[in-house]
Amino acid sequence: MAGNSFGEAFRVTTFGESHGPAIGAIVDGVPPRVALSEADIQPFLDRRKPGQSRFTTQRREADQVRILSGVFEGMTTGAPIGLLIENEDPRSKDYGAIKDLFRPGHADYTYWRKYGIRDYRGGGRSSARETAMRVAAGAIARKVVASVSIRAALVQVGTNAIERARWDWEETERNPFWCPDAATVPHWVAFLDEVRRAGSSAGGIVEVVACGVPAGLGEPVFDRLDADLAKALMSIPAVKGVEIGAGFAAAAMPGSDHNDAMRMADGAVTFLSNNAGGVLGGISTGQDIVCRIAIKPTSSLAKPQQTVSVAGEDAEIVTKGRHDPCVAIRAVPVAEAMVALVLADHWLRQRGQCATAVREDRGFNK
Amino acid sequence: MAGNSFGEAFRVTTFGESHGPAIGAIVDGVPPRVALSEADIQPFLDRRKPGQSRFTTQRREADQVRILSGVFEGMTTGAPIGLLIENEDPRSKDYGAIKDLFRPGHADYTYWRKYGIRDYRGGGRSSARETAMRVAAGAIARKVVASVSIRAALVQVGTNAIERARWDWEETERNPFWCPDAATVPHWVAFLDEVRRAGSSAGGIVEVVACGVPAGLGEPVFDRLDADLAKALMSIPAVKGVEIGAGFAAAAMPGSDHNDAMRMADGAVTFLSNNAGGVLGGISTGQDIVCRIAIKPTSSLAKPQQTVSVAGEDAEIVTKGRHDPCVAIRAVPVAEAMVALVLADHWLRQRGQCATAVREDRGFNK
Amino acid sequence: MAGNSFGEAFRVTTFGESHGPAIGAIVDGVPPRVALSEADIQPFLDRRKPGQSRFTTQRREADQVRILSGVFEGMTTGAPIGLLIENEDPRSKDYGAIKDLFRPGHADYTYWRKYGIRDYRGGGRSSARETAMRVAAGAIARKVVASVSIRAALVQVGTNAIERARWDWEETERNPFWCPDAATVPHWVAFLDEVRRAGSSAGGIVEVVACGVPAGLGEPVFDRLDADLAKALMSIPAVKGVEIGAGFAAAAMPGSDHNDAMRMADGAVTFLSNNAGGVLGGISTGQDIVCRIAIKPTSSLAKPQQTVSVAGEDAEIVTKGRHDPCVAIRAVPVAEAMVALVLADHWLRQRGQCATAVREDRGFNK
Amino acid sequence: MAGNSFGEAFRVTTFGESHGPAIGAIVDGVPPRVALSEADIQPFLDRRKPGQSRFTTQRREADQVRILSGVFEGMTTGAPIGLLIENEDPRSKDYGAIKDLFRPGHADYTYWRKYGIRDYRGGGRSSARETAMRVAAGAIARKVVASVSIRAALVQVGTNAIERARWDWEETERNPFWCPDAATVPHWVAFLDEVRRAGSSAGGIVEVVACGVPAGLGEPVFDRLDADLAKALMSIPAVKGVEIGAGFAAAAMPGSDHNDAMRMADGAVTFLSNNAGGVLGGISTGQDIVCRIAIKPTSSLAKPQQTVSVAGEDAEIVTKGRHDPCVAIRAVPVAEAMVALVLADHWLRQRGQCATAVREDRGFNK
Repeated sequence: MAGNSFGEAFRVTTFGESHGPAIGAIVDGVPPRVALSEADIQPFLDRRKPGQSRFTTQRREADQVRILSGVFEGMTTGAPIGLLIENEDPRSKDYGAIKDLFRPGHADYTYWRKYGIRDYRGGGRSSARETAMRVAAGAIARKVVASVSIRAALVQVGTNAIERARWDWEETERNPFWCPDAATVPHWVAFLDEVRRAGSSAGGIVEVVACGVPAGLGEPVFDRLDADLAKALMSIPAVKGVEIGAGFAAAAMPGSDHNDAMRMADGAVTFLSNNAGGVLGGISTGQDIVCRIAIKPTSSLAKPQQTVSVAGEDAEIVTKGRHDPCVAIRAVPVAEAMVALVLADHWLRQRGQCATAVREDRGFNK
Repeated sequence: MAGNSFGEAFRVTTFGESHGPAIGAIVDGVPPRVALSEADIQPFLDRRKPGQSRFTTQRREADQVRILSGVFEGMTTGAPIGLLIENEDPRSKDYGAIKDLFRPGHADYTYWRKYGIRDYRGGGRSSARETAMRVAAGAIARKVVASVSIRAALVQVGTNAIERARWDWEETERNPFWCPDAATVPHWVAFLDEVRRAGSSAGGIVEVVACGVPAGLGEPVFDRLDADLAKALMSIPAVKGVEIGAGFAAAAMPGSDHNDAMRMADGAVTFLSNNAGGVLGGISTGQDIVCRIAIKPTSSLAKPQQTVSVAGEDAEIVTKGRHDPCVAIRAVPVAEAMVALVLADHWLRQRGQCATAVREDRGFNK
Repeated sequence: MAGNSFGEAFRVTTFGESHGPAIGAIVDGVPPRVALSEADIQPFLDRRKPGQSRFTTQRREADQVRILSGVFEGMTTGAPIGLLIENEDPRSKDYGAIKDLFRPGHADYTYWRKYGIRDYRGGGRSSARETAMRVAAGAIARKVVASVSIRAALVQVGTNAIERARWDWEETERNPFWCPDAATVPHWVAFLDEVRRAGSSAGGIVEVVACGVPAGLGEPVFDRLDADLAKALMSIPAVKGVEIGAGFAAAAMPGSDHNDAMRMADGAVTFLSNNAGGVLGGISTGQDIVCRIAIKPTSSLAKPQQTVSVAGEDAEIVTKGRHDPCVAIRAVPVAEAMVALVLADHWLRQRGQCATAVREDRGFNK
Repeated sequence: MAGNSFGEAFRVTTFGESHGPAIGAIVDGVPPRVALSEADIQPFLDRRKPGQSRFTTQRREADQVRILSGVFEGMTTGAPIGLLIENEDPRSKDYGAIKDLFRPGHADYTYWRKYGIRDYRGGGRSSARETAMRVAAGAIARKVVASVSIRAALVQVGTNAIERARWDWEETERNPFWCPDAATVPHWVAFLDEVRRAGSSAGGIVEVVACGVPAGLGEPVFDRLDADLAKALMSIPAVKGVEIGAGFAAAAMPGSDHNDAMRMADGAVTFLSNNAGGVLGGISTGQDIVCRIAIKPTSSLAKPQQTVSVAGEDAEIVTKGRHDPCVAIRAVPVAEAMVALVLADHWLRQRGQCATAVREDRGFNK
């Protein structure tokens, strides 16, 4: 009801503000006897961690996650998993200056209208800080759908798109942008340096691909797999659009080009194209699931902007805090995590929470 | 869990197959003492009804809705509202020919993989027939958010987009496409006639605008208003993309252009632009909510397509059934309805289900 | 949210008022390929049907149920199952006399306080008429947990309890009270005739037993199997108490007597007693699940009672409508149904909705 | 789905095992601008805390709660409230001896059957340790329904019931049993000392009373206020029965005695008795809500019991751990907390989550 939970069978509930003592989550519905430790989660948090290049915020956070429950002797027990990360570098003083001003493009004004109270410390609950817990939960979700590989890449920054013909997944690990096209990297470097000098910011487009999703995942009508993916991805801060498969381009295609023809090959159904993006009628086809999201440019700018104050007066605002010139970069691991959450949830909705345990033979009294 | 319900405080659950005896819905959470009758719902169903022009399926359905509960002496009672529409024109014979073939671009294959059973009668549950109940429930949702006006228009068919400068809401009621630009209509007529002759189909883009939404609607983190809108709209059959405000274009904008500047006017906060599309941080700003969805071309084609059979053999398929050459047309009233469902749900999540009743003074024992 | 749904994985949503045109339900989450037809449901509705003896209301209802969706060629498809029963014998005139009076012991006053509106026709939504849909849904739930047998009996009427030593399940089908003790039946006949003559009413105690429930069903902490059973049974109209196993008597037992000792027998765990009633820590043990519920005496009385009017004035009320002198009798099939709903829900939460379908081999493309 | 959450509008999710590093909870849906600090929660945790008399377990836990989010400058913000208590005194060694044995009357066997894994450390998730988080969340719930007073008392220990005529709420704070009848206390002292000497244990009955609940709270049909109370109370470890108002005694009462007559007094509706226990048709009447629960005797006994091992062999077990001879004592504050959770949830379902904030005037742009 209050919006801080995601999923039904694999259910994540998070808490925590940008400048509070800690952020945390409870992951409920994880099947028993899955090998799990902090070492399975930390690498994904490190991918999202700020301060890794001059293109992301310089805020310093170790983001060390602790598992507080649900794991015994290295295996999940089926009990809820409590996760905790202490905040290390709040720097509230950064925000005192804009204490009474609404930052344009931020949730400051809308939260204040909804709740009638203002936590001015870096946006409080509305800060992207909460996405760390999405990434931690996503790492656990990956263990539930272990046969699925979920990867994302940044395919456009500002007006500069990659050349898809040069796509190389390994390249995404070699540059600070998760860019799959080595030749595009220097252009983004130059572009973002210019953006920062201009006191402005840039947006981008992220593509997520899930390989190995079995056919038959998803629900009819409302809880379609693609509908839940759309919700999960649109819930990421700064996302303004979501598309699957051919996406918006599908509107301009004739049906004869868009339909993915089907053929048998080695006794298996195959598709001759994937304009569907791996989902038909809301249920997975067995092909790769391919989604793209549009991320708006960072709202916090070094250059002055027109705004109003809590007192209802016109004002100018300059945000001095540490911010990402292009939040799309750090959205990459978050987008992967949200897709993992959706797949784990639909997996368990279909397979059942404890299926692995209840089906297994424990030597007597079956 | 099984995907046939939408919403939490304003909750709609639907049932019914394309060729079963009837389709229906239960709308739970409607506040008491709202004036309601079939006459409030039927006009919206008539907008969606097939067979209204040569550009939509010729299937004949009166789509007469009956209210079976929840209304007493013309007013809602707070009890769940049961809705029923009898199916009149199933024509199952149309489908016998493709009984054992999977229609490319349809849910035939994925439903069969998920459920292990095949209801070949026009797609059964996966048919767009179920959207009639979304429209009926949406009409009730509009009564809950009576101060909000929700309208949609078709802004692109195939590659032909409207001229936004010529946008006229009244024009949408004068042509069979819900097109807001009179000058574009003849081009679409010619284009779709050509598409039909070619035995192909076309996609399109629908824009939905909600005016009068108060600031402060929506939840943080996961159940953001825009996230729920994305889910609601992506759940409409054939939708492949959803965007809000500037949408995908936001990725290419500098932050200084994208942020909507704020000023006071007559003691009220105003925004100098609406790139946000009426939502910041997942919560409404008080501006218009503006969404666009991409609809793929109709999957059923008169021209032969490659497919496979239930028995796992290659085959060719030609769908003779009555189909819309461009399903985007009939998606217009459905998109309006889904936005209404989301707004009514968040409205009640915030205001409370029975707020109107419990707050009112009934003369004693307050 | 609005209270008309039950269950998560096996989810039932009902609608309908005592004197509206029809009552209905949507059962969502039923696994595919379960053989189902009206003939599987009707016998259970007939057990609950009024007018079967002089000890139940004389209202005449055929209670013929129609399945409107979710079944194709005699098998469930995994789509939601729509159920409908037309009301035949409303007789609203019976209620005109008490149009403005609150019936003591009824929901008239509380509904009016909650909703601020009054549907005086036999209690509207609060009438026990809605329990017909619980019984219909319960019949479908039984098919989901086909290996479980769920039976109930009336074990006390007013102050007259049965002799447990004479318990005979077959006897419950031979008398109008579902009484398992033939020797007690004549006492109840005499007692209830006296009660009716006195213009009063009587309560009773119902016991429900579920045999064949596998060990391991239920969830920890909040959604315990016994907690959900308590909710399900307390939600039946007129129920004032629920107990499981030893129930309230457990409070007076020493732990050494109450604990059910465990021994191995033929390689299986067995218990030497069942004070737990088949549930430990909220999860099933594999023993019979045994619950008892206390039903208050019928609120509608032929003798005058003190009440107040909608206008806030003292008044006297005599209810002339057709009522059961002892609603506990007709609560028997309803109690069975509610236990079936809980077991089917926990079964699917554990096993997964589509487990049967997704696990099965369909010849290719596994 | 996985059972570790309670409530819809006021939603509590807990985690933590008896011998893990910590236990915690997330309370979501708390309205904004409610004054809250650890000092509002700690006193209720102290009431539940073990080791306060020789009649409760000697395990030493400070149970110091930390609020990690959702509160800013002493007021709730509407963001989820993260709660954490570090475990101080696990003493896992106590449990090594029974590592491979199922304790009769415990969840050891059922959890092992459900999850296929065994956390033998004091029952892990099934330990009553988790109830500390129910009490902490209940303290927050009390702030949401500030006008309601929720109190509980122990009214029976073993076979010794109090004398209701001597009921004195203040006395409950003066003895270690929360006993409202001073004259009964010495009998319980003698009885429990004898029970402990015998290596046995005792059960009891707890009564909870909520005063000041407004009329009109609760939902129809399934989510009745009494149904949710029954679930909440039955979910407390060791509870075997729940009743409301006259409870099981209602079965033996004639309707003319059981119905609570209604009269006007000072322009308000009043009832001449409260056999309903404050709920009619699942909705509150405005009278006190009165519930009773039966708690079974502690399962862990000093005297030997028959059991089986994980390996499927007969065995004898003697539990040496620190246990309450009568868990009913510590169930008193837990029962109060569960009633508070139910009332806060139904309060917000009706009034709306943010009602307080959205209704208030913030000077402009209403």
